[in-house]
Amino acid sequence: MRTSNYLLSTLKEAPKDVETTSQKLMLRAGMIRQLASGLYTWLPTGLRVLRKVEGIVRQEMNNAGAIEMLMPIVQPSGLWKESGRWTKFGPELQRIKDRQNRSFVLAPTHEEVITDIARNELKSYKQLPLNVFQIQTKFRDEMRPRFGVMRSREFTMKDAYSFHLDKESLVETYAKMHQAYCNIFTRMELDFRVVSADSGAIGGATSHEFHVLAETGEDLIAFSTDSNFAANIENTEALSPFKRQAIAEKTMTRIEAPEVRTVVQFAKQYGISIEKTVKTYLVKASDKMQEDVIALVVRGDHELNETKVAALCDVAYPLHVLTDREACEYMTGGKGALGPVGLGVPLIIDRSAAVLGDFISGANAEGNYFCGINWGTDVDATKVADLRNVVEGDPSPCGQGKLFLKRGIEVGHIFQLGSQYSESMGATVLDVYGRQQAMEMGSYGIGCSRVVAAVIEQNNDNLGIIWPDAIAPFQVAIVPVSGHKSSRLLDVAESLYTELVSKGMDVLLDDRGRFGVMLKDMELIGIPHIIVIGEENLNQGFLEYRERRTGKKQLMSVDVLKAYLENL
Amino acid sequence: MRTSNYLLSTLKEAPKDVETTSQKLMLRAGMIRQLASGLYTWLPTGLRVLRKVEGIVRQEMNNAGAIEMLMPIVQPSGLWKESGRWTKFGPELQRIKDRQNRSFVLAPTHEEVITDIARNELKSYKQLPLNVFQIQTKFRDEMRPRFGVMRSREFTMKDAYSFHLDKESLVETYAKMHQAYCNIFTRMELDFRVVSADSGAIGGATSHEFHVLAETGEDLIAFSTDSNFAANIENTEALSPFKRQAIAEKTMTRIEAPEVRTVVQFAKQYGISIEKTVKTYLVKASDKMQEDVIALVVRGDHELNETKVAALCDVAYPLHVLTDREACEYMTGGKGALGPVGLGVPLIIDRSAAVLGDFISGANAEGNYFCGINWGTDVDATKVADLRNVVEGDPSPCGQGKLFLKRGIEVGHIFQLGSQYSESMGATVLDVYGRQQAMEMGSYGIGCSRVVAAVIEQNNDNLGIIWPDAIAPFQVAIVPVSGHKSSRLLDVAESLYTELVSKGMDVLLDDRGRFGVMLKDMELIGIPHIIVIGEENLNQGFLEYRERRTGKKQLMSVDVLKAYLENL
Repeated sequence: MRTSNYLLSTLKEAPKDVETTSQKLMLRAGMIRQLASGLYTWLPTGLRVLRKVEGIVRQEMNNAGAIEMLMPIVQPSGLWKESGRWTKFGPELQRIKDRQNRSFVLAPTHEEVITDIARNELKSYKQLPLNVFQIQTKFRDEMRPRFGVMRSREFTMKDAYSFHLDKESLVETYAKMHQAYCNIFTRMELDFRVVSADSGAIGGATSHEFHVLAETGEDLIAFSTDSNFAANIENTEALSPFKRQAIAEKTMTRIEAPEVRTVVQFAKQYGISIEKTVKTYLVKASDKMQEDVIALVVRGDHELNETKVAALCDVAYPLHVLTDREACEYMTGGKGALGPVGLGVPLIIDRSAAVLGDFISGANAEGNYFCGINWGTDVDATKVADLRNVVEGDPSPCGQGKLFLKRGIEVGHIFQLGSQYSESMGATVLDVYGRQQAMEMGSYGIGCSRVVAAVIEQNNDNLGIIWPDAIAPFQVAIVPVSGHKSSRLLDVAESLYTELVSKGMDVLLDDRGRFGVMLKDMELIGIPHIIVIGEENLNQGFLEYRERRTGKKQLMSVDVLKAYLENL
Repeated sequence: MRTSNYLLSTLKEAPKDVETTSQKLMLRAGMIRQLASGLYTWLPTGLRVLRKVEGIVRQEMNNAGAIEMLMPIVQPSGLWKESGRWTKFGPELQRIKDRQNRSFVLAPTHEEVITDIARNELKSYKQLPLNVFQIQTKFRDEMRPRFGVMRSREFTMKDAYSFHLDKESLVETYAKMHQAYCNIFTRMELDFRVVSADSGAIGGATSHEFHVLAETGEDLIAFSTDSNFAANIENTEALSPFKRQAIAEKTMTRIEAPEVRTVVQFAKQYGISIEKTVKTYLVKASDKMQEDVIALVVRGDHELNETKVAALCDVAYPLHVLTDREACEYMTGGKGALGPVGLGVPLIIDRSAAVLGDFISGANAEGNYFCGINWGTDVDATKVADLRNVVEGDPSPCGQGKLFLKRGIEVGHIFQLGSQYSESMGATVLDVYGRQQAMEMGSYGIGCSRVVAAVIEQNNDNLGIIWPDAIAPFQVAIVPVSGHKSSRLLDVAESLYTELVSKGMDVLLDDRGRFGVMLKDMELIGIPHIIVIGEENLNQGFLEYRERRTGKKQLMSVDVLKAYLENL
């Protein structure tokens, strides 16, 4: 490719509202442009990278025996009602109506459609195991799209689905996919971790996430200091504290502090340790509870873990935390005034909150707090559960060492779905004995567009992006210094270009002319190997080779340089 | 690929409601499955063909200097309002609302988004010409999806858009695209014609369609017996008849025929030539007319040409033919009773109808007809226009020969858009003199998924599909006769398979076992080269080679066969 016939679209500055390095560099390097919130166009340079990522994914999936197909983005609501996800998925599921007022969805994943295909096409255990995949556009109507293609609404995903007669076969394919994912991310030179995870809206029991470690990651991963333990904190158990419930020393008293809106503020103002306070949340109860609402109580310095809470059988799924308006039936003032004493709804107490004594909470009236509360004496604590996120220093649930946290970008997720979809949708095969049997299923996703951003988060410097060779938009850039003035330099550049291209390399020949501008752009775009052709060096028979990652410069003869590039 | 690890999904019978050969064969060969009306899953065999079609398209577009990028499917309505297509496009445009009640479309084409990108990224004539393309999913909420992927709602299209400083440059790129399209369809071994066409909802002046000739085509193409003239009948002028208006011989009289609903029925019943009747249509008038409604009059044996009518400046765009309910203001009974006499709305008369004398029409009352009508005497015919489809035998508008008609499947369409989008959306660049100038644009589409069906329409026999080598899902099938019983046959098959695959060929090894079933499937799927490995032949050192297209069988030694396949 020659820049004169290309859409380079580099920018000196990124727009102001950009939050992450990858988003900034993708905009500046002319890889993407925002069309609307969460909707991005992939400009030529970006698409080249995306296609190479998809190429690696496709190759490793094929190597692992998966078969490629392609399912529609627009899907009839009927299938989603069959699986139950029409109601379960929440507002991220983009629903549409066609001209005849029939309901459809823009698919966020394809479990329903593939299960429908499986129940029609698979009749016998002899056709199993089967593992199919697609690389397809997905849509999620994110509440808060952000970080560019990292959390966008329309995105490209590789999703695979496997079908099995039994659990054993599922586990085998799951392990193959685990290995394929490791191969994929290794080929992209990513620093990643495999962590155990929650299955969320997809469902199933066992599940692992693949995380690229980066400070801008939206997920927190818990690692153990003394073992291989690694899990998304969504899914990391906070063990019960070793201590028993503290012995009561005080009597509960009400204190008025009209200006103070939350118990945490109250503790700060009065110099009380925040660990002696509890926060209270009101959430919708599940259908099988007599009450509509349940209160959850965690220590003031802890955070509610929404994944754990949503999984409790007393709590409605998906989780619905009451709004101020809905909550005002239970107290006066804002939700910061909530507390367990006298609230009049069933309570579930976090394990760490349940061992407190003489603690403090809101008194369900604006600016009113109870001090010296004790479980049993002042309020019952019959239901105790793990409701909170782990924090650094917590004991590891594996039993060895303490937890420390790192941020991660989720680029892959694999699930052992079991038979939940095949049972709800009637996807059965005949087994060896001629009996109908619901198939075991697995589901395996990689966010291809997100991977592109994740690679940049781990590969950049103050000049721009630094691509690993395997997914660089171009492997080699040729920059003739003032090439527009010197036909001799341009001739050398053209002949080198033609030769490298004929050997199957992706080469960008910058034939624009201003050396400083050209070099800066090639560095910003992150082309790993840059060849500068200058008058003086050429007179001595040399070209200058620059390695983008190290910044190392080296003079080489044309032949040595060609041999070097071919050996990469 | 081995069938044992593949999703073959062939069917003995296609579902009953299937209308065309390609749809039937795509279903039977396990290429596609219908998810809902107009929505199809591409099974592995189908996707292999689609990807090869896309690959050829991509290669020829790259060769012609076009640059690939990727634009979102979901697009904000604002851009469509800017271009005016939000109102113009009609109900085929799928509109959606997101969780915040903002309006979006599922894009049927991408002129708006690319023009938005161009106005942001292109600043100077030095960046022109630029030709960008994408291969992307499109959506049209078709009133009547049919013929499988031929007219589906979700489909894959290659769309390209070019930007130019002047018309001359546009014409140059247009010619390049014309040539690229010819290369593409020639590589797929299609029998196609380039015909001049109407620009429809896309807009612009000059436009050509690429049609694959096939009886199942939805379009009618008019050719001249004596010249190269070829045009979609949407866009073929029906010349004025050579004869003058006939001289009146009769006086208009009203006849009651209570059982007769239309003038054509009336003529049949009374043995009158249908060419002596006229049909009348009521359509919405354009905004600039004083009246709301206009009547169009064509001869009873002619068909209204909606493209021509919609383009008339007196008629509203898009065309709206009045429903029975809307029309009842102007007559009693059904619309078949309509006639020009006493209708009370402005008339536009087709050229062929305008030369009639003593003709017959409805009398705007159920079962009432006027006979012996003459223009001027009984009703005015001040406005005459070309309103009808041409028919076989009409003089060719090129002036040479007569027209004959053939059916075609539109697989490509190229447009010289001019500056309509760049002007309405303000996409300008600075020209050589530093003046802002709206860019000239071209737009170029190929329906990739439709191409697959079109190839099948032209390449099939009673056994199934016959793929051209370039887009076959597999080039070679290896069928060991009773391979499951004889490890020797399977060994030969495996070793041949490994060798051919290592040479880059797409090979399907059928390792299922029942020869008849295997061979029938390979023929149905249409694999061009089939190798049968049988015990007896093998004992004599031979394999059997079968050419799918000719059915020719030939015994060859392994070495001769390998050399033959490599030379293809």
